[in-house]
Amino acid sequence: MPHPFQVTARCTSTRARTGRLSLVHGTVETPVFMPVGTLGTVKAMAPEDLAAAGARIILGNTYHLYLRPGCDVIERFSGLHRFMHWDGPILTDSGGFQIFSLAKLTRITEEGARFQSHLDGSGHLLTPERSIDIQITLDSDVIMCLDQCIAYPAERRAAEDAMEITTRWAERCRRTWLERTGGKNALFGIVQGGMYADLRRRSAEALAAMDFSGYALGGLSVGEPNQMMYDVAEAALPLLPDDRPKYIMGVGTPEDLVELTARGADMFDCVMPTRNARNGQLFTRHGTLNIANSRHRTDTAPIDPACDCYTCRNYSRAYLRHLYQSREILAYRLNTLHNLHYYIGLAAGMRAAVREGRFERFRRDFYTAREDRND
Amino acid sequence: MPHPFQVTARCTSTRARTGRLSLVHGTVETPVFMPVGTLGTVKAMAPEDLAAAGARIILGNTYHLYLRPGCDVIERFSGLHRFMHWDGPILTDSGGFQIFSLAKLTRITEEGARFQSHLDGSGHLLTPERSIDIQITLDSDVIMCLDQCIAYPAERRAAEDAMEITTRWAERCRRTWLERTGGKNALFGIVQGGMYADLRRRSAEALAAMDFSGYALGGLSVGEPNQMMYDVAEAALPLLPDDRPKYIMGVGTPEDLVELTARGADMFDCVMPTRNARNGQLFTRHGTLNIANSRHRTDTAPIDPACDCYTCRNYSRAYLRHLYQSREILAYRLNTLHNLHYYIGLAAGMRAAVREGRFERFRRDFYTAREDRND
Repeated sequence: MPHPFQVTARCTSTRARTGRLSLVHGTVETPVFMPVGTLGTVKAMAPEDLAAAGARIILGNTYHLYLRPGCDVIERFSGLHRFMHWDGPILTDSGGFQIFSLAKLTRITEEGARFQSHLDGSGHLLTPERSIDIQITLDSDVIMCLDQCIAYPAERRAAEDAMEITTRWAERCRRTWLERTGGKNALFGIVQGGMYADLRRRSAEALAAMDFSGYALGGLSVGEPNQMMYDVAEAALPLLPDDRPKYIMGVGTPEDLVELTARGADMFDCVMPTRNARNGQLFTRHGTLNIANSRHRTDTAPIDPACDCYTCRNYSRAYLRHLYQSREILAYRLNTLHNLHYYIGLAAGMRAAVREGRFERFRRDFYTAREDRND
Repeated sequence: MPHPFQVTARCTSTRARTGRLSLVHGTVETPVFMPVGTLGTVKAMAPEDLAAAGARIILGNTYHLYLRPGCDVIERFSGLHRFMHWDGPILTDSGGFQIFSLAKLTRITEEGARFQSHLDGSGHLLTPERSIDIQITLDSDVIMCLDQCIAYPAERRAAEDAMEITTRWAERCRRTWLERTGGKNALFGIVQGGMYADLRRRSAEALAAMDFSGYALGGLSVGEPNQMMYDVAEAALPLLPDDRPKYIMGVGTPEDLVELTARGADMFDCVMPTRNARNGQLFTRHGTLNIANSRHRTDTAPIDPACDCYTCRNYSRAYLRHLYQSREILAYRLNTLHNLHYYIGLAAGMRAAVREGRFERFRRDFYTAREDRND
């Protein structure tokens, strides 16, 4: 079947590139940042807020939605889109990461992952086939293969075993996906291998041979030093087919987005803009700003005078601080809107820079602006 | 000075009427329901949400805003409107009710009310003059006189003392208001007197003689039986000047709005639609519905198929239940939007019914629909 991605421009001095990803519910320009909608809502956002912040694709978490509200509920709505009133593309993860990070008494066998729910302790078995089935029920635009995640640091042997089982599961996911959808929705394979460059390479090569719609690097941003993450990405990304989208899962800071785009990554997701917003940490060109800081108490200026998000167009730092200090619900929404606008705008800025042949300058300016700190 | 209210239509069989209240920041059609924006935000709502729900005037709480963020902050914005990004009319209460219900170690003297902040125990003195000053700093469209509230039940003597001090304070408020604004923003007097009809009458007559822009009944909905509240309103409302707006403070249920409109009230405010929304209780023509109820788990229908609010147009009961059970922030916003739309729509429905000479039928239909219960 035709694969859904075209590269549209390239940076001549780095591996940065722009692309177009055509999915069932719409087309996405890359590099792209995808807000995380864990439980069928990007926390504090309505779908119209996401669109206003520039979001074109969002994430759903299979593990969470499977437990709450349950697949039988979402099936009544023929998928997650109508359930949550978002008609754009949705990427769903496989559940592998939450089983590793959240579930209790997890046991991995060849068959799949047995675990107890973090909510009520109930027992579950998630096989590669079941993960694909659930994601099809969610009507995901981008389905992810079930992978086994490991902690950092990990012994080489544990990293190798997890990588190999992830590869075997990828075969089973691909077969189920072809049988169930005929390849209509996209399916991405996930590269594992811990921080071992040679394992990452073996994983990338094995998955590349299976011809997925796209590829992801999993198991990054789990506590390793930044440079190590960049090195792993630099080792693995070039081994993945150039004509497929490359997605770094669960990453990261604004710097990470810039550095990994320079190394050839196309897609990112992270809870950082949304979670930090709820903790009063706001992203700007000049670094982060803590809205609880008393120096904002009487400040009539917006978070960033150059930002054209809804929050910056209409509200002052003094008001945002007041809302945040008073734990008003509107605080979480206004802060989240701004942070998502920043992250999504950063990706848009990189796309424009690559298209116009000035990505290296964009990257330099990005760091220069951050030296003029806010706090 | 010209007073800001005109009666535009009357019901022939009850005291229900419609009117137009012209304020500095806009014109308000009555009967009207005013959402409560305690801390410079109607909880979970952005100003655009309020406008979409049909709100034309909102409330601010002087006591709360005086303590947090403080008048010096709001002064930088020349008032509450720009601070909170709401450019429509705002009515502010005087602080009297919160000093009664929330503050600690309150002591009332002729001078004013001494109290300790419920936030940090700091000591404060709120005089009638200071209350007006603060409300002018907030640039309130409708300023309320400082009143002394009492508990229910109250001894006649306590009710009489509180009523009399409220009357003397009203004089001082009026003088300060004239000096400071020249009568530009509206000033309402507050009728007190507990549940004693003769005290309420004395209070109403004394205030009426002072020629306020409008009049309120305070100290209702403090635990008394419903019929008693209606009786007090029925005794006091006709004694207030017919050509002035009449406002029942802190009231109430949908039934209260209908019954008090029938008795001649024009304005209402209450935290019920917003607070109950945050507790999962949703108002409909057919009574209230608890969204946490498991029978909504797979229900693809909206809260009310006949409701055209944003929530009902776009979301199902199953989704709202899921959000609420998951304590997602969006739950509070969507529920609040619906409840405010219901309350504001109820007032709009009464206006249309009065104008079209069918208020009595409206009132009957209102009760008939509620017999077809939701839960």
